[in-house]
Amino acid sequence: MSKLMRVNLSTLTVTTQDLPAEYAEMGGRWLTSTIVAREVDPTCHPLGPNNKVVFAPGIVTGTTAPCSGRISVGGKSPLTMGIKEANAGTPFSQKLARLGIRALVVEGEVTDRSKRYVLEIDKDGGRLVEASDLAGKHMEETFAEFGKRYPGHAWCGVSAAGEAGLPLAGVCFSDAEKRPSRYAGRGGLGAVMGRKGLKGIVVDDSGGPGVAVKDPDRLKEGSRKLADALGRHDVTKPGGALNSFGTAVLINILNEAGGLPTRNFSSGVFEGAQKISGEAIAEAVAERGGKGMVGHRCHDGCVIQCSNVYPRPDGEEHVSCVEYESDWALGANLGVDDLDDIAEMVRLCNDYGLDTIEAGVTLGVAMEAGLADFGDGKRAITLLQEIGRLTTLGRILGNGAAFTGRAFGVTRVPAVKGQGMPAYEPRAVKGIGATYMTSPMGADHTAGYTIASEILGVGGKTDPLATEGKVELSRNFQTTTAWIDASGFCLFTAFALIDIPSGFEGALEACNGVLGTRWTMDDVTRIGSEILKTEAEFNRKAGLSAADDRPPEFMRLEKLPPHGHVYDLSDDELDEVLNF
Amino acid sequence: MSKLMRVNLSTLTVTTQDLPAEYAEMGGRWLTSTIVAREVDPTCHPLGPNNKVVFAPGIVTGTTAPCSGRISVGGKSPLTMGIKEANAGTPFSQKLARLGIRALVVEGEVTDRSKRYVLEIDKDGGRLVEASDLAGKHMEETFAEFGKRYPGHAWCGVSAAGEAGLPLAGVCFSDAEKRPSRYAGRGGLGAVMGRKGLKGIVVDDSGGPGVAVKDPDRLKEGSRKLADALGRHDVTKPGGALNSFGTAVLINILNEAGGLPTRNFSSGVFEGAQKISGEAIAEAVAERGGKGMVGHRCHDGCVIQCSNVYPRPDGEEHVSCVEYESDWALGANLGVDDLDDIAEMVRLCNDYGLDTIEAGVTLGVAMEAGLADFGDGKRAITLLQEIGRLTTLGRILGNGAAFTGRAFGVTRVPAVKGQGMPAYEPRAVKGIGATYMTSPMGADHTAGYTIASEILGVGGKTDPLATEGKVELSRNFQTTTAWIDASGFCLFTAFALIDIPSGFEGALEACNGVLGTRWTMDDVTRIGSEILKTEAEFNRKAGLSAADDRPPEFMRLEKLPPHGHVYDLSDDELDEVLNF
Repeated sequence: MSKLMRVNLSTLTVTTQDLPAEYAEMGGRWLTSTIVAREVDPTCHPLGPNNKVVFAPGIVTGTTAPCSGRISVGGKSPLTMGIKEANAGTPFSQKLARLGIRALVVEGEVTDRSKRYVLEIDKDGGRLVEASDLAGKHMEETFAEFGKRYPGHAWCGVSAAGEAGLPLAGVCFSDAEKRPSRYAGRGGLGAVMGRKGLKGIVVDDSGGPGVAVKDPDRLKEGSRKLADALGRHDVTKPGGALNSFGTAVLINILNEAGGLPTRNFSSGVFEGAQKISGEAIAEAVAERGGKGMVGHRCHDGCVIQCSNVYPRPDGEEHVSCVEYESDWALGANLGVDDLDDIAEMVRLCNDYGLDTIEAGVTLGVAMEAGLADFGDGKRAITLLQEIGRLTTLGRILGNGAAFTGRAFGVTRVPAVKGQGMPAYEPRAVKGIGATYMTSPMGADHTAGYTIASEILGVGGKTDPLATEGKVELSRNFQTTTAWIDASGFCLFTAFALIDIPSGFEGALEACNGVLGTRWTMDDVTRIGSEILKTEAEFNRKAGLSAADDRPPEFMRLEKLPPHGHVYDLSDDELDEVLNF
Repeated sequence: MSKLMRVNLSTLTVTTQDLPAEYAEMGGRWLTSTIVAREVDPTCHPLGPNNKVVFAPGIVTGTTAPCSGRISVGGKSPLTMGIKEANAGTPFSQKLARLGIRALVVEGEVTDRSKRYVLEIDKDGGRLVEASDLAGKHMEETFAEFGKRYPGHAWCGVSAAGEAGLPLAGVCFSDAEKRPSRYAGRGGLGAVMGRKGLKGIVVDDSGGPGVAVKDPDRLKEGSRKLADALGRHDVTKPGGALNSFGTAVLINILNEAGGLPTRNFSSGVFEGAQKISGEAIAEAVAERGGKGMVGHRCHDGCVIQCSNVYPRPDGEEHVSCVEYESDWALGANLGVDDLDDIAEMVRLCNDYGLDTIEAGVTLGVAMEAGLADFGDGKRAITLLQEIGRLTTLGRILGNGAAFTGRAFGVTRVPAVKGQGMPAYEPRAVKGIGATYMTSPMGADHTAGYTIASEILGVGGKTDPLATEGKVELSRNFQTTTAWIDASGFCLFTAFALIDIPSGFEGALEACNGVLGTRWTMDDVTRIGSEILKTEAEFNRKAGLSAADDRPPEFMRLEKLPPHGHVYDLSDDELDEVLNF
């Protein structure tokens, strides 16, 4: 029988119950958003005792299904003040799933604010252990300590920035080699966890029951079909784009499309793009030798392997991973074209437990305010260090781009619902803009990745500059994505799911194998729209409204080079995107 | 013919037109809120070129009607992100009215951010004059310079804090002796004006046409009736409570009622209340002699004269005015019981151009965050100076209480719609809480001053701790207040209006005399509710919703000493307050 575990920091108790029947078919984002919507008062203070942090592996997570090691984390966001779901790929999720734990709900808050706790989970259940000696420590030190205390476990934790309640703080998970590098980063759930006094969670699945699978043959056959599709698609196959160059392969592609946000979204073209591209990363790895690598995986069972380990000039490991989003946020968005500076900023974000996207967008706004010159990577590093040291300036920056904009009176702030925009310029790629504006998550590319169609031509190419059809495109991507986020499959499986029918069949069959269901494509739409409606309703009760589904004013007023477009999906069109 | 003047900082032009017919009967808040609702995009950036600042004298302002020198200022607030109306008593408004200018609309923003302008207005019209030498100057220096350049004018202006876009900045008007002391303080309209590049407005009514009055006899008779009522009511009469002790007479009264918010709203009783009371102020004035005085007026024609000039120990002038709200915000709310420290903080707020209420609530939250100890007035002074110097910390504090709370992770933040609560504890005085939660202005006591009934027994005494009847009480006060804010009469006339029927008749007759209308009490309700609906509709379009009409969560959870109440008007009850 699958389990739901509750840990209460107010009472310092852990309880485990059978998974309620109404949650039986849910996993991942479906389950975290549903529990948050049912149990969290939408008007509560996100850093107070009435918010919760909910963890859930996906439906197929922990099985042999490929690329399925995702963990979903949910709660009310201190950044957007709405519902938040962020997910990551990590062995942590696989171990939790193999213990039969489908959901973990973190509640309450410590009464003694100086105290910190670690939640230990294994086959015998969960228990809170005091770890106040870890208070104020960032992730490298925290995970080093976990390495001594819990060498056989997978871990997650929060940094000093999370303990301080800064909305830049994500929940940090260990990767396959136990680095602090896999983030449920967006929206400040690390701050929610940190303020509860929960420093980390460690999971050992030794002797666990494994994932309950209703129809092992169906799971096996589905997994085989999906693996086959992933192995054939140009984007996801071994030696394909993601495997060879990592996600930063997109730097040159977006730059050529005029959609690479540059210097705080003042241009769609960055003259230094080539120097920070995925190709340049692969070249540095090849030239420098040593510990650098491309084709790295965040967890066992991943066949795409899009991650990397970026080397220092002497071949020692600098950081994993220089993703496209991080590379852009801390590179092009700041006018910085030095990969070593970018790698150092990614390392600092990993150590400080920060969302690299929000960190980069925040620094872009800070540069707009005159705190540093665009292009000055060394100064950008010192600004990040202000966050790590929790200085007064660090507390401004650690609250994100919109907050920083208000502190310094900057009106060009690329954010929706208070969350900074990712690495695609909505004025140059209109469909992703529709996702940014309307996703219940705030500006979030992963919520409905229309880039697949508008830039990469997956599922049929659409014109990125056109507005026609983008309402439906974003809606379809958001709906399908919500289902994928429930399944436990990595979002990057979507390329193969969309282009290769047997791939999507395989993903559905894998879920059906685990759950004993008979889901078809109709169920993908049904479940995806149900998840989105649940999230939107939470936001409505929390006080968000149609006015929050809008671009920042400057994107309506300023034409973006080189195409000279403003953001021109109308308010009425935006209101249609999630009007199911 | 009455006029509407427009000044555009983008084009550096001033135009004057006949007042549009649909505005013919409007004045004050009715006119500013109506123009803002018609002309300002509710979703615009409040500090961007599409916001406007609208000034309007009241209907009877500039005539001989008593206590009528109010100026209304409106716009979209950078503090609440909704509509904002703030008003002040000042000769500025009388002079504007006597030039026949019923509304002044400030639009656009300077293209060269280093430039500053002063708008000169006289009988020949309006003109923008460059005054970039005043950039970065606070109010004492700015008004000293205005004294040299414009000795015969009345003035308003913004400080360096306003130019920096800080939402603590109000629009500062000259009092009868040209001090920078009369504030349209709340909601950051000084920041909106400052960011447009408009440093000040100076008005000379010499040779002007005077206020157009349709029926002078009716105006005269109405004014006489009102003056008679004001002269008889215990609160407003010469030698009465307000005249003898100033508004700070309320310190002891609220403290005895257990409703004086103390140490960031953690208690309703302050042990140092007596030392900062209106009685103590009057005593200091009497003992120290010199320039101190009670019974001071903000403009000629005021018969209540509730203001004061607080003296230094040697009898020199320290500051005008130590109002109840300022005294409380910078006193009891910070645990400070030294009137000289409080006076110095009021002086700094006047110089820096800051809303004293928001400044005090912000410092209370900062003390909660540990930036200073409660009771440490000297340290509180240095925190205010951070705002004046526009330091990094000053930019946090200058953004208000809710912003400061988020920067430092404080969850006990007494604010509604982002605006700090004034000097009445809603858990001890339930009706004023209904006004705080539901006023389109955010937490604002002047929007519906139920204290008159709940504490002072004006219009019939109601139990402050009871919830019964408070929905209607707040609605009635908010409606009547909106009309008073349109009329141009000081809100303090309300005591006499409510208790003495001939007083209200007089106020109505004075308006009817000016406008040639036949308003009765029914029109007060009609106009008041129309104003509130206009404002609420702007807020809805701006993205505010029912979730914004709620107390901060801690007031639902924490019982307030000494009565031990939480805030217990239900969400449904709050939703009924302005449900016309």
